[in-house]
Amino acid sequence: MIRALFSAGDHVWPEYLEALPPAFNTEGLIVDLSRSHAPETVDYIIAAPNGPVQDFSPYTFCKAVLNLWAGVEDIVSNETLTQPLARMVDPGLTDGMVEWVVGHVMRHHLGIDAHILGQDGEWRTDYPPLSRERPVTILGLGELGAACAQMLATLGFPVTGWSRSQKTIQGVTCLASDTGLKKALTGAEIIVLLLPLTDATTNILNAKTLALLADGAFIINPGRGPLIDDDALVAALDANIAHATLDVFRTEPLPENHPFWKHPQVTVTPHIASTTRAKTAATCIAENIRRGEAGEPFLYLVDRTKGY
Amino acid sequence: MIRALFSAGDHVWPEYLEALPPAFNTEGLIVDLSRSHAPETVDYIIAAPNGPVQDFSPYTFCKAVLNLWAGVEDIVSNETLTQPLARMVDPGLTDGMVEWVVGHVMRHHLGIDAHILGQDGEWRTDYPPLSRERPVTILGLGELGAACAQMLATLGFPVTGWSRSQKTIQGVTCLASDTGLKKALTGAEIIVLLLPLTDATTNILNAKTLALLADGAFIINPGRGPLIDDDALVAALDANIAHATLDVFRTEPLPENHPFWKHPQVTVTPHIASTTRAKTAATCIAENIRRGEAGEPFLYLVDRTKGY
Repeated sequence: MIRALFSAGDHVWPEYLEALPPAFNTEGLIVDLSRSHAPETVDYIIAAPNGPVQDFSPYTFCKAVLNLWAGVEDIVSNETLTQPLARMVDPGLTDGMVEWVVGHVMRHHLGIDAHILGQDGEWRTDYPPLSRERPVTILGLGELGAACAQMLATLGFPVTGWSRSQKTIQGVTCLASDTGLKKALTGAEIIVLLLPLTDATTNILNAKTLALLADGAFIINPGRGPLIDDDALVAALDANIAHATLDVFRTEPLPENHPFWKHPQVTVTPHIASTTRAKTAATCIAENIRRGEAGEPFLYLVDRTKGY
Repeated sequence: MIRALFSAGDHVWPEYLEALPPAFNTEGLIVDLSRSHAPETVDYIIAAPNGPVQDFSPYTFCKAVLNLWAGVEDIVSNETLTQPLARMVDPGLTDGMVEWVVGHVMRHHLGIDAHILGQDGEWRTDYPPLSRERPVTILGLGELGAACAQMLATLGFPVTGWSRSQKTIQGVTCLASDTGLKKALTGAEIIVLLLPLTDATTNILNAKTLALLADGAFIINPGRGPLIDDDALVAALDANIAHATLDVFRTEPLPENHPFWKHPQVTVTPHIASTTRAKTAATCIAENIRRGEAGEPFLYLVDRTKGY
């Protein structure tokens, strides 16, 4: 009997209670899933970074902590967590992110806002350029960034991707290093942020790097709030940046009186770009428990030295 | 020396005067392009349906009329036009249409309007279903409809396509005939109209067929205005239809006082879903003139019995 502790908000428990048992069953696992196992009896912790378990030290026999979120920055710094830590790589999460990014890239590319907000009876027949004439840059080429880059290339955009280590993605110009970053940003008309949050990526979009983007550029941030220097962004909205669509923020929920809500060149979305969906996430969790029991290496292990 | 007459609005002449000569040159053609050849000297007419030439009978040696638009319904009924008539199949037009359709499908799929119009400080974390859970139906599987169907299938939507004659498109459920139409519409959550306008397709979306769509369905019409019975649509917006995004109308420009402009569930766009772009269209025209001179069959000939 494998004991798995579920440590996440009350509101997600019902959907996982429904989704996990069939996924365990598919992997041939007999699992006692609970929210209240005695710590020393727990084999695996299925954990949201903001879940009730914040002190992992009593879980002395725990073989792995399986994160429910793709992002680990809120849990990787927890010094009591010494067990192997795996990220969530949910195919539903990747697909949802691709859909959200494609939707907002196309929205800005086509200038859809002007139509939604401008139903004033005037027949304006300007039309947008073709996607092949609209350079898009994606910062971050992990699971999510790579999938978005490929779909945008399929839609005809010239796509440049940048990541810390050099990647190769068919149809995408992949750059790395500091000089690569400068090249990736220079002249980009739409930029999508999908980097992990580390010391090196905090404020990666700042006054200096924002100035490299094309006149009239669009920023789309479904990654992490602190990737952007907020004050520099607000200043750049008066200069070369046409619009910023932001899904993530330093403080979430974004306070009701935050100036982003009222700024005519900012669209706030409430951290919905992608969300872990219980049904598809359960298969990722069950697969890793099967691997743990079979003595195979875990998938998506976090490298503590890199922080992701 | 080949004589080509250009018959279209003054405002498009400069871009074609720039784009056509290099395209003729690429095909090895020496063409005298003008807006004022004597009718009996003309070999080819490059014509917009609303261009200055409306009586084609004096052009007795004209080998073909090369339409500048994808739609031919305004020219095919011209009884003076007895020469072979070719539609425009501009790769730029197809790409532009795919981009516009993808943009508006994703906009409705993701519920982007609610964010653009609802920047009120409230953090609403509802998220949309995945595209795989959102059935999309495309009426019309010609060059444009087929290209849109394939791209939406690539984005993960379950896509059903309907056309008069049975088609086969990988990854798309293709239906035909009257019973096929009923099946294609029943339960569709997003419907895209890309049919040619004929007697058989006029008012194809009417009170009876609109009622087949899913509750909360979205209608996207970048095809032709009369494909929809306007009164039935307005009534259906109070029933099962959530929103209609309309790019084409019975009268264009849509009159400033038309109720569509003010209807909260209608988005009017000014016939911009796709437009013939001179640079890519010129290659289509030059190719057909080369074929005419070489005695090869013309591409994209209109079948007068079908009307498209």
